[in-house]
Amino acid sequence: MVIQKEIGLKPKPRGFHIVTSEILNQIPEITEIEAGIVNIFIKHTSASLTINENVSPDVREDMETHLNKIIPENAHHYTHTFEGSDDMPAHIKSSVLGQFLTIPVTEGKLNLGTWQGIYLGEHRDYGGSRQIVVTIIGE
Amino acid sequence: MVIQKEIGLKPKPRGFHIVTSEILNQIPEITEIEAGIVNIFIKHTSASLTINENVSPDVREDMETHLNKIIPENAHHYTHTFEGSDDMPAHIKSSVLGQFLTIPVTEGKLNLGTWQGIYLGEHRDYGGSRQIVVTIIGE
Amino acid sequence: MVIQKEIGLKPKPRGFHIVTSEILNQIPEITEIEAGIVNIFIKHTSASLTINENVSPDVREDMETHLNKIIPENAHHYTHTFEGSDDMPAHIKSSVLGQFLTIPVTEGKLNLGTWQGIYLGEHRDYGGSRQIVVTIIGE
Repeated sequence: MVIQKEIGLKPKPRGFHIVTSEILNQIPEITEIEAGIVNIFIKHTSASLTINENVSPDVREDMETHLNKIIPENAHHYTHTFEGSDDMPAHIKSSVLGQFLTIPVTEGKLNLGTWQGIYLGEHRDYGGSRQIVVTIIGE
Repeated sequence: MVIQKEIGLKPKPRGFHIVTSEILNQIPEITEIEAGIVNIFIKHTSASLTINENVSPDVREDMETHLNKIIPENAHHYTHTFEGSDDMPAHIKSSVLGQFLTIPVTEGKLNLGTWQGIYLGEHRDYGGSRQIVVTIIGE
Repeated sequence: MVIQKEIGLKPKPRGFHIVTSEILNQIPEITEIEAGIVNIFIKHTSASLTINENVSPDVREDMETHLNKIIPENAHHYTHTFEGSDDMPAHIKSSVLGQFLTIPVTEGKLNLGTWQGIYLGEHRDYGGSRQIVVTIIGE
């Protein structure tokens, strides 16, 4: 059984945001799957999807601060600069964190650990809404 | 055909560890799959799963040393510090390396390259046992 | 429905290369899938697969330059040095960027965003040809 649909995420400010509910609210069909996987794929190269701690806002804040340290704006060696100082770092962050997740589905639910939430990494200053393809495969 | 089960990994010291056999020993059902994929998902935000060189212990050692350089403990900008100095770096490493693998299965076996092994990245000093969901989809 | 095959990528110089067409040309079977996913897995630990901007060559160039900054050759703390100064950085880059992609397939095509292309990260100076396993699952 394959369920596939394209959904949107509302515009977010630059940084990391928990989007588990915003995604789940758009895929009620997941309850039909007893066992399987869901692939969640973001159709952009300046944002990312990752999993991390779903309680403390300071984890999201430190993620943003530390990634800005190791992948800074305005590094002298960047040549791709015409789309703004936030653009090239956004591309690198997108590849380092990844643009897709594949998560187990069990008894109609995401089988995440207690502390795991889905993060959108919004790496542009004004990224706008983001498009995601969700594909659920299972039985 | 979907096979799904939850397995455990025994407690390991901080660092990188080859866990290919520890995982395979717990999923003998993989031999039933002629062609497909296996999703291996760790239910934690302070550990990671990645693939790397399966012979030289110095690769695992250098991975740990270098990741500690770029994602250090006690960085002045961390605000999430109440769970210990190893906690916030563990969260960042977990997102940078990833919490899941999707690997092809061919003729009942993981279709890895000759030099590829599955690494557990244990990013806490005392992480304890780790829970993993394995989902095999194929025919 | 499961389609699985092993394909090769021709030798490339060190750096990032768009390989979307080189892969698609070898999997015409993808047109049989109305909805599903494709797993693209590279069987090496010194190369990577990632998704990024598919137009500007300077994005690929800046990716290479910046990754060389944060994962340099000849770092004093490397102990795994006998295979050349490009070897240990290649292993770390491979884990940071990842060795596999799972991308949605819709109406017989990769469902990528407008600006997304598949990058081969060739992290060795002379990596040679690279082997990939493609697994398509869908209906």
